[in-house]
Amino acid sequence: MHPLPSALADIPNGSVTTPRGFTAAAAHAGLKADGAPDVALLVSATSCATAGVFTKNAVRAAPVVYDADLLAERPGRVRAVAMNARVANACTGAPGLAAARAMAQAAEQAAALPPRTALVLSTGVIGVALPLEQVVDALRAAAGRLTPDGGPEAARAIMTTDTRPKHCAVRFETPAGIVTVGGIAKGAGMIHPDMATLLAVLTTDAAGEPAGLQPLLRRVADRSFNAISVDGDTSTNDTVLLLAGGASGVDPSRDGAVWKTFEDAVLQVARTLALAIVSDGEGASKVVEIQVTGGVSEAAAREVGRAIARSTLVKTAIYGADPNWGRILAAAGAAGVPLAVERLSLQAAADGEWLTLATGGATAHADLGAAHAIFAQKTIRLRVDLGLGRAEAVVWTCDLTPDYVRINADYTS
Amino acid sequence: MHPLPSALADIPNGSVTTPRGFTAAAAHAGLKADGAPDVALLVSATSCATAGVFTKNAVRAAPVVYDADLLAERPGRVRAVAMNARVANACTGAPGLAAARAMAQAAEQAAALPPRTALVLSTGVIGVALPLEQVVDALRAAAGRLTPDGGPEAARAIMTTDTRPKHCAVRFETPAGIVTVGGIAKGAGMIHPDMATLLAVLTTDAAGEPAGLQPLLRRVADRSFNAISVDGDTSTNDTVLLLAGGASGVDPSRDGAVWKTFEDAVLQVARTLALAIVSDGEGASKVVEIQVTGGVSEAAAREVGRAIARSTLVKTAIYGADPNWGRILAAAGAAGVPLAVERLSLQAAADGEWLTLATGGATAHADLGAAHAIFAQKTIRLRVDLGLGRAEAVVWTCDLTPDYVRINADYTS
Repeated sequence: MHPLPSALADIPNGSVTTPRGFTAAAAHAGLKADGAPDVALLVSATSCATAGVFTKNAVRAAPVVYDADLLAERPGRVRAVAMNARVANACTGAPGLAAARAMAQAAEQAAALPPRTALVLSTGVIGVALPLEQVVDALRAAAGRLTPDGGPEAARAIMTTDTRPKHCAVRFETPAGIVTVGGIAKGAGMIHPDMATLLAVLTTDAAGEPAGLQPLLRRVADRSFNAISVDGDTSTNDTVLLLAGGASGVDPSRDGAVWKTFEDAVLQVARTLALAIVSDGEGASKVVEIQVTGGVSEAAAREVGRAIARSTLVKTAIYGADPNWGRILAAAGAAGVPLAVERLSLQAAADGEWLTLATGGATAHADLGAAHAIFAQKTIRLRVDLGLGRAEAVVWTCDLTPDYVRINADYTS
Repeated sequence: MHPLPSALADIPNGSVTTPRGFTAAAAHAGLKADGAPDVALLVSATSCATAGVFTKNAVRAAPVVYDADLLAERPGRVRAVAMNARVANACTGAPGLAAARAMAQAAEQAAALPPRTALVLSTGVIGVALPLEQVVDALRAAAGRLTPDGGPEAARAIMTTDTRPKHCAVRFETPAGIVTVGGIAKGAGMIHPDMATLLAVLTTDAAGEPAGLQPLLRRVADRSFNAISVDGDTSTNDTVLLLAGGASGVDPSRDGAVWKTFEDAVLQVARTLALAIVSDGEGASKVVEIQVTGGVSEAAAREVGRAIARSTLVKTAIYGADPNWGRILAAAGAAGVPLAVERLSLQAAADGEWLTLATGGATAHADLGAAHAIFAQKTIRLRVDLGLGRAEAVVWTCDLTPDYVRINADYTS
């Protein structure tokens, strides 16, 4: 569905520690009842230029407040990311912010790093105090066994309702040497644009400046993590980080073509992780790719895609293999974007050819049997043409199943 | 939960035909496979001043386009409303608009009314042509047996996935005589502010002017039909109509106190119908009342309430009887309204006293057993104080259950 651009080579079992200069390890702090790792530490041998994209939710968790503050103050000095699952350290007031700070300091001390060089990421239940002592002990244990193979284990440690760890890496050649980009993420439920309980850490051995990386990461996030939806909810903790350590000796910003390939590589890693999150959505049985074309702007096209992606009526129809195209157009109409109904068209495809379901905002009298066959597949592509301009966007979502309800009906307390 | 203001008297088994001057009947057009009535006709003996509130979805169904146009042209001459269930006449292009016009004309001819005096309402599957001949025949049959007792039967005819017909009426005394307000509605799935697949017709024997009724109906709709959410989706067909026929001889606009009581009466009818819709939400097992206080404006408070009401994570937690207050604050934070986390507080109650779950945006260390007991009830009240101002709003929603998914997975085609 998403062929790699030819310049990019996928690296099997890649992760945040595939780029040179990064090590990681996981440990068990006792937050997960089953004894699985629940704390992870990522460390860079060099100071990293770092960009961050954070939740737009007005209720921001303590780690988000801490990280945004640190990145505003010194975005070129990051050396580590300390992570935990099971407790989000959100809605925890001033003690929560102190706990986030203490967690960062513990990581810095355990890895012998200067002060204010560690970022923190938490995910899990909201409103519960972070068991700080346990987390600190686990961070110390992790610091004692940091390894360049530790990325996949870190990905496993940050899982909550995820059923699979999510990690990948790509590399590409430049005249000045090979550049590698890697990443880990956790997601599953609550995923939606702006980016509920989504944590992602991207690393690269390219050199960079925070001023250049920040807009790049924003563009990448809009086309990957902000273009997926599991249940339309947004969260208190969502964070995407990009750390550039420079161990490759290549600074992609010196050559326009190399910079473009670098952004493609970061996007490729981000999209791979984002799609892994959608297909691992809580209770999900199907993945839907929604292409919106003919928009007056990319942002408007994306809003239409998001509206379709978060519609519970569309998502239940997908679950039921029901080619209910009217619900899809109705969801598009609810996007809050100006539309001309008589210009709307809708097509659907699985692996094969596109089947036109609606033209001019009304039925195209498609072969119903063929439509049912498409909607019965595990991966469904929809293409909505707005007929208003040339801008496009792609959004991914999953179906809404009875299992989603069951998983979320008893997650806490 | 919502005591009647003392001046208003509930009328048992009331409906749109309880106010003087209105008759109605239902008939079977063969749209519902089980032989149940699926077409209804409401007729007024006098010309009605009429107000209408329509869906904000950019994809507007043909009946919405037709009615909005007719009300813009002659809002003081309405004599009838023709309704059908099972086919929404949405996403049907120019032929759909012609069908809506033909349906209105058939109602006018069958009831011997002047041209352009009938409104039309349709609900059901999107993207399917209206079976016009069958609907016209049924409207003729209905016109032959119009009766002042016909309101409840009309309410039954417009049901889709509703399990119960929804109708009510109230009356109040004025120095100039008794005024009655009645209504019917259909809802169930797809209900959300702006007001997916919600149809409501309110009638009164008060006299009125369209210029006064329109802002009154807008205020009432914001505090009733636009304050409920079943699944966050908005639809192509949502319509709320208010017809004032004047048979009581009372014009409430001549006296400020009477006008206020009149608005209370319309609001009482609208809220009764809106709450009946929520408690009959597709697969719903619980009703949640969300009171938002301390807002800088009623609109901002309502947005926060809506964000909580449409959160699938909140709604699944309610289904699971899980007092997961963090999800409620996180949903509030996603409303797109400025909030100060440290001023947020949250309380919950069933029948008894309020239990404080969060203060200052963090846990209030509530008795977990008491919290679980509240969330195990069939009716749950939440009170979110934003701590920013004096404005308030109330929003209602229901839980999200596995049955909702099952119902919507195979509704069409």
